[in-house]
Amino acid sequence: MNTKVDLNIEEETVKTLEWLGQFGRDSEGGISRLLYTQEWIDAQRSLAKLFEDEGLTVHQDEVGNLFGRLEGSVYKDETILTGSHVDTVKNGGLYDGQYGIVAGFIAIKYLKRKYGQPLRNIEVVSMAEEEGSRFPYTFWGSNNIVGKARKEDVKELKDFDGISFEEAMHKAGCDYKKNPEKIRDDLKAYIELHVEQGNVLETEGFPIGIVEHIVGQRRFTIEVTGQANHAGTTPMKYRKDAMNAASRMVCEINELALSYGDPLVATVGKIMLEPNIVNVVPGKAVFTLDIRHTSKALLEAFADKVTAKMRKIADKLGVEINIDMWMDADPVPMDQRIVKIIQNQCDENKLNYRLMHSGAGHDAQNFAEVVPAAMIFVPSRKGISHNPAEFTEPCDLAEGVKALIGALYKLGYQEEGV
Amino acid sequence: MNTKVDLNIEEETVKTLEWLGQFGRDSEGGISRLLYTQEWIDAQRSLAKLFEDEGLTVHQDEVGNLFGRLEGSVYKDETILTGSHVDTVKNGGLYDGQYGIVAGFIAIKYLKRKYGQPLRNIEVVSMAEEEGSRFPYTFWGSNNIVGKARKEDVKELKDFDGISFEEAMHKAGCDYKKNPEKIRDDLKAYIELHVEQGNVLETEGFPIGIVEHIVGQRRFTIEVTGQANHAGTTPMKYRKDAMNAASRMVCEINELALSYGDPLVATVGKIMLEPNIVNVVPGKAVFTLDIRHTSKALLEAFADKVTAKMRKIADKLGVEINIDMWMDADPVPMDQRIVKIIQNQCDENKLNYRLMHSGAGHDAQNFAEVVPAAMIFVPSRKGISHNPAEFTEPCDLAEGVKALIGALYKLGYQEEGV
Repeated sequence: MNTKVDLNIEEETVKTLEWLGQFGRDSEGGISRLLYTQEWIDAQRSLAKLFEDEGLTVHQDEVGNLFGRLEGSVYKDETILTGSHVDTVKNGGLYDGQYGIVAGFIAIKYLKRKYGQPLRNIEVVSMAEEEGSRFPYTFWGSNNIVGKARKEDVKELKDFDGISFEEAMHKAGCDYKKNPEKIRDDLKAYIELHVEQGNVLETEGFPIGIVEHIVGQRRFTIEVTGQANHAGTTPMKYRKDAMNAASRMVCEINELALSYGDPLVATVGKIMLEPNIVNVVPGKAVFTLDIRHTSKALLEAFADKVTAKMRKIADKLGVEINIDMWMDADPVPMDQRIVKIIQNQCDENKLNYRLMHSGAGHDAQNFAEVVPAAMIFVPSRKGISHNPAEFTEPCDLAEGVKALIGALYKLGYQEEGV
Repeated sequence: MNTKVDLNIEEETVKTLEWLGQFGRDSEGGISRLLYTQEWIDAQRSLAKLFEDEGLTVHQDEVGNLFGRLEGSVYKDETILTGSHVDTVKNGGLYDGQYGIVAGFIAIKYLKRKYGQPLRNIEVVSMAEEEGSRFPYTFWGSNNIVGKARKEDVKELKDFDGISFEEAMHKAGCDYKKNPEKIRDDLKAYIELHVEQGNVLETEGFPIGIVEHIVGQRRFTIEVTGQANHAGTTPMKYRKDAMNAASRMVCEINELALSYGDPLVATVGKIMLEPNIVNVVPGKAVFTLDIRHTSKALLEAFADKVTAKMRKIADKLGVEINIDMWMDADPVPMDQRIVKIIQNQCDENKLNYRLMHSGAGHDAQNFAEVVPAAMIFVPSRKGISHNPAEFTEPCDLAEGVKALIGALYKLGYQEEGV
């Protein structure tokens, strides 16, 4: 079976994104669809209907992850999963998360029409939550799928209105998983399509990025303590200026990061001075450092080198330094076989791609712990995400869906697929 | 007349400071004596009594400046004025301001006992206000004396409790000056004794500083606009990191200031980032720059050079920069003849001093516009001021008073004095 399919992937993708984007459309022109809110409930219900109308077998798990399955004909206990998260940040955009769901659905719709029933099940998932925007907990959706979510981690959490996680969950008709550690044993692969949230593809002119690694991250808070002094009466040579010391450290961090080159990134995103007054030499500077790399060894090496350099600067300027590492997440490699399959498909179908890494965390990193996982990126205009200005060209959205179709075909329709 | 005087200057100074410090002693161990409060009223009333008991002619002007005069015998229309401000910052120390009043009083007391009536009037002034701690207006006391204070500049001001300046003033029994521009024509010299509020005298081991200049100041707000980006997905080479750019500028400011050497000081005391989030490359950094120098030409030259360097950094890093100068006060030289008189006295009396500048603003800079003015500093331990931890060794307090005595003697008791 290999019929001509009357389905304009580009139009269908844009239309379905717009349709899904109406659930949670906010007054500021963005989308606010937080976990277990009415907008969230409406979106999941409407997706269930969409999946059913396409003839997929629909299932929603206890916590609210929604699955739409195109049943396989031969390997009924083997499932190829694709999708992403349905929740958004507050005042988010039209693409982050929901593009992966829409793309998965359209890919399946296309495959079904073109090739009929696959050998293995192909499923699209609309995951409950990834952003951590309502409650201070991220990856609730995929954590539940991979058996990592725990009742005690969310039970006490409250949203900004004081509503508890549990209350919100129950109100949305959901509940904790009966067997939180149980993992589906039919999952054979997970492929997530997502917007890049960076500007590499746009800058370099590629419509598709195939992710090889999701970066590891270390986050630090650095406290520099000098001495607060009168800005007029304290000669330069007698100062212990925490801002001057912090600035030297920030310069050093940036220079060292540049010298390491991609994919290392280092960011000082936040700083707080004391007393933070125009005419007082700052006595204290507290700033954050976020470093990421796809290689654990290089991430560690950079962290060691940069902290040593900061201590040296502190020493030289006579200020105290305290460096606190409060996040240390290892890099996650994507499955090299699936990466290769996606790559081959792109080559065969003449899709223009580059291999890259993901500098942001994604559900795929959770899946990677239990199943061969991979990701495909499409460009984000100006790298903007988590914002109503989030945008990807329709033609690029379509290219991403085509790459996914190719990969799902290989994995779901071919004997040697998995 | 030159009798032996039974007056221990050191003990008397400490005792009188402690006595005056009881007015406004706060629960945190500091002194809070804001303009026109009950503590302020009590302090001025008690000082008036102290002055009267010593046989001085007491006068309080409309706005509340309190004067205690030792009448001159010959030049009755010539007055040598000394003193400082009686108000404190909130939770201030025992020395800032009130040391100048106490020292002036004790100097007069000593001179009167030792030498009797002077040729010229010698007056101590306890000025109403200098700190700007209750209302957003500084130098209310000396501005009134030198004819610079204006009703319209304070009329609409309110304190933190919403009480208007006028209401507070009237409640304290004070009022605007009838002739705001009128300046006393008997004033021939003003000498202010003050704690240094810096650490130069302490660090270099001098009990006395004779001020030659009060620095000029320029204050700027610098706004650096780059582009906020995801900290994980934006490669170093594609960033427009406002914090990185600001840090380079701060380093440059400090290096250039060090290369200029004393008395130039440059301070970045305040910074604010947007969005100021650990995992977002800062899109904006707004920081302040406070520069001071005793030479107007060098202050200007430094300002020009440092702003040019900042623009160059912005250019190089592809960020926008906006530099707003919102304060531009010229340096104020002290009267060289009076400086010389103080210096000679110190030499004759074997007092250990250094010539220096004041990096902070003082009432003396106001007086300097209308009358020969000078200042004497004593050390501030660790340079601390505006804080209950403010401290000057009793022996240093006494050395300061002795230097003042010498100067007042020369100016008030000697024919060629002024």
